[in-house]
Amino acid sequence: MATPQIALLLTGNELMSGDTVDSNSARMATQLGDVGVEIGEKCTVGDDPTRLESALARLTNAFPALIVNGGLGPTRDDLTSEVVAKLAGVALLEHPEALAHVNSWCARRRIAPNPANLKQAMVPDGCELIDNPRGSALGFALEINGCLVLTTPGVPGELAAMLPEVVARLGARLGGSARHVQRLQTFGIGESSVEERVRALGPEWPEQVALGFRAGMPQLELKLSVASQTLLGEQQRAVTLLERVLGDHLLGEDDARLAACLQDLLLAQGKTMTTAESCTGGLIASMMTREPGSSRVFGSGFVTYANTAKRDLLGVSPELLDRFGAVSEPVVAAMLRGALARSGADIGVAVSGIAGPGGASEDKPVGTVWLAWGTEDDLRTHRAVVSGSRSLFQNVVAAAGLDLVRRQLLDLPPLPHYFTRQA
Amino acid sequence: MATPQIALLLTGNELMSGDTVDSNSARMATQLGDVGVEIGEKCTVGDDPTRLESALARLTNAFPALIVNGGLGPTRDDLTSEVVAKLAGVALLEHPEALAHVNSWCARRRIAPNPANLKQAMVPDGCELIDNPRGSALGFALEINGCLVLTTPGVPGELAAMLPEVVARLGARLGGSARHVQRLQTFGIGESSVEERVRALGPEWPEQVALGFRAGMPQLELKLSVASQTLLGEQQRAVTLLERVLGDHLLGEDDARLAACLQDLLLAQGKTMTTAESCTGGLIASMMTREPGSSRVFGSGFVTYANTAKRDLLGVSPELLDRFGAVSEPVVAAMLRGALARSGADIGVAVSGIAGPGGASEDKPVGTVWLAWGTEDDLRTHRAVVSGSRSLFQNVVAAAGLDLVRRQLLDLPPLPHYFTRQA
Repeated sequence: MATPQIALLLTGNELMSGDTVDSNSARMATQLGDVGVEIGEKCTVGDDPTRLESALARLTNAFPALIVNGGLGPTRDDLTSEVVAKLAGVALLEHPEALAHVNSWCARRRIAPNPANLKQAMVPDGCELIDNPRGSALGFALEINGCLVLTTPGVPGELAAMLPEVVARLGARLGGSARHVQRLQTFGIGESSVEERVRALGPEWPEQVALGFRAGMPQLELKLSVASQTLLGEQQRAVTLLERVLGDHLLGEDDARLAACLQDLLLAQGKTMTTAESCTGGLIASMMTREPGSSRVFGSGFVTYANTAKRDLLGVSPELLDRFGAVSEPVVAAMLRGALARSGADIGVAVSGIAGPGGASEDKPVGTVWLAWGTEDDLRTHRAVVSGSRSLFQNVVAAAGLDLVRRQLLDLPPLPHYFTRQA
Repeated sequence: MATPQIALLLTGNELMSGDTVDSNSARMATQLGDVGVEIGEKCTVGDDPTRLESALARLTNAFPALIVNGGLGPTRDDLTSEVVAKLAGVALLEHPEALAHVNSWCARRRIAPNPANLKQAMVPDGCELIDNPRGSALGFALEINGCLVLTTPGVPGELAAMLPEVVARLGARLGGSARHVQRLQTFGIGESSVEERVRALGPEWPEQVALGFRAGMPQLELKLSVASQTLLGEQQRAVTLLERVLGDHLLGEDDARLAACLQDLLLAQGKTMTTAESCTGGLIASMMTREPGSSRVFGSGFVTYANTAKRDLLGVSPELLDRFGAVSEPVVAAMLRGALARSGADIGVAVSGIAGPGGASEDKPVGTVWLAWGTEDDLRTHRAVVSGSRSLFQNVVAAAGLDLVRRQLLDLPPLPHYFTRQA
C-alpha cells in the first residue's frame, strides 16, 4: 500500500525574498510522518492572488488533501481566506465563533478590535473552524473538488499549537500507516561509499528496507525505514548487515554524536582526556564540552596557536620548533606529551596544521595537518591533507581528532578508512 | 517595468521528510535580489522522477528561467541530470571537462573515482557546465522550451560557491534593475527593539528606504534597500540615523563579524588577547581562531573546566575556589589574571558559569555566569543569567565575552544594554 501523499502550499512574501527561512514545513512533515502521511509536493508563492489561486487550483486537483500555511493575518497582504473562498465558489462570511475568538483575543490584550483584527473573523461559508490557541487567526477546513483543504497561520508558534488538530484530521481522512524508521550515525564515510558497500551485498540486503541519508557535519546519518511493523525483523537484519560492512564507521543509533560517544567511552573506562590545539584553536575542546556531563571526563585543554604558547604552556622545546617547524610530527607529539603531563589526563589529542588561507610553504600546502593522539605509552601520529575552506578544514580535523581517540579506546585499527584511502 | 520572476525547483527526500530545513532558497533569493530578479514560485519535491519531471515541465512552461537545486549527487537517488535530459529530449553523455573535474576532485582527496563519482560526469548533451569550486558535482545550463534551466547542488557550501556564476547568468539573461542593498551587522539587540527605535524616529526616517532583518546567531543583520541609484543618498541618511539610535550595538557593514571586528581592533592597537574558559569550554577561542589571520592577535587560550585545571593551569588559589566556588567573581577574576600572566597577552576574557543541565545550586541557577574581561590594570567583572539550552547559553556567553573585550578596546561604556536591562 502506497503511503498517502498530500500537498503543502506556503504563502508569504518573506518566504520569497530570502528574509525568512521556512521551518514550518519541516515541522509539519515530521508530525505528519507519525500518522503515516507524506508530503508529495511543497509549493511556495508570495502574497500574489494570481499565483496563489493558480497553485491552489492545481494542487487541489492533484492531491487528496492540502495544507495552506500563511496568509491568515490581519493585513491586506493576507489573501488565503479570500482566494480559497473564490476557488470553492462560496462567499466570505463573518463567522460568529471566529468573531468571538478575535474579540476575546483583543480583550486579553486590552485593545479594541480594529478593522484589521475583524477581517480575521471572515471565513469561507460552510467551512469548519480549526482552533488557534495562540493567536487571533483561526484556521479552517473546506472541501474543494474532493480535496480537503486545511488553512494554518504562518507564525511558527501558532502553527505548532494548531498542528495536533490538523494532523489528526489528515490522519483520520487518509489513514496512512506510519513507517518505522531506525536511524544510525556514522563518521568518516560518505554517501557514495555506503551505497557502494550496500550494493555489493546484492540480494542479501532486504529489499523492503529503504535506505536514506542525511549529511551532517561531521556525521552522516543513515535512515532505515520499513512500511509496517511486520518488517521490523528485516530492518534489524539490515542493521546487522550495515554493522558488518561499515564496521568502525558506525557510531551508534538515534542521535549518537561523536563527542558524546567518546564521553561515554571515557566514562566507562574511568579515563579523562585533554586537548592541545593549534590549527583548530579550541574547537575540539568546544565539541567535547558542548555535551552535557563533559566535566566528568574533560578537565582542561590547551589552545596553543603561537609557537611561544607551545613552548610556554606545553613545554615543546624551541629546538624542535626551529628544526622541524610547528607543523611536524616531533612538535605535535611533544604538544600531546606536554598536555598529558600538565593536565594529568589519561589520553589526549594534539593537532598542528595549516588552516589557511595563509601560512603554507612548498612542502606544507594549506590543509596539511599533523595529528598526535593516545597516551604517554601508546602515542600515535599521522599526517593528513584536508582540502577545502578554513572552516571545513577546522571542522574535519577536530572531528577526526575525536574519532582517533575513540578508535584507540575501542582498540580499533589505529588508522581509519578516511586516512588510509588517502595513501 | 515589472521585476522579472523566475522559478525555483528544489529536490531531495530530506526536504520532504522534515529532516532538512531549506536555507538554500533564502540565500538564492537574497543574491538574485542584487541583480533585480525575484523568485515567483518555489516548488519542492522528493527524489521522485514522476513528480520531478512534471514540476520541471510545468515550471519551464510558466517561467523564463528556472534554477533546479539538488539531485546532482553521486547516488541513484540523484535524478536531476537524467530528468532534465529527458525533458529536453537529449542524451546524457560523459562530458570530458566534467570527467576531468571529477577525476581531479578525487585526486585531491587521493581516492580512486568509483562508479558513483563517475556518474557525476554524465550531463545532458549540449549543456554548458557551471563550475563547482567546492564539490564534485558540476552544475549545468540548458534551454528547455525557451526557459533557461540552471542546475545546482543541494549542499549549501557548494551552492554558495556556485551562486555568483548562476546569478550572473540570470542577471545577464533577464536584466532586472537591482535594488541597492546596504547591510549592517549588529550585536546584542533584537528585531523588535530596532523597530521600536526606528519607529520613534517618526518622519525623520526616509520612507523610500526599506528596513529588513536577518536574524543570525549571535548577530542580527539589518538590510537597508532602495529601489534605485538615485536614492543612495537617502540610504546613507538612514545608515547615519541607525548609527545614532543603535550606537554601540553596531559592529560594521557587510559581513562584519564580531570576532573579525575584534581581531581588527586588536591588530590596529597592536595588542594580543587570551581566553580562560570554563563553561564555554573553548568556544571563545574557537570563534577567534575561525577568522583567518587570527594568529597575529591570538597566541594561546586556556580551557579550564575542572577546578584542578583552574588551579594548575591558571594559578587560581584553592582557598578562593573553596570559599567562593568556581562560579564567582574572585575566581573568574583570578582566572583572567592567571591567563594574562601565563600567556603574556595584553587583554583577555574569562568565563565561569553553569551551562546546565546539571550543576545548579540554590543561589546559582542554571544559566548563571561570571565574566571577567580587560587587562591587568583595568579588569572588570559582571554576573549575568542567560536562560535557554546548554548550547544557547554557551553561544551567548561566548559572543558576549568577545563583545566585552571589543567594548573595552573601543572605550565604550563597559556594560552593554543586554546586561544593564537585566538589572
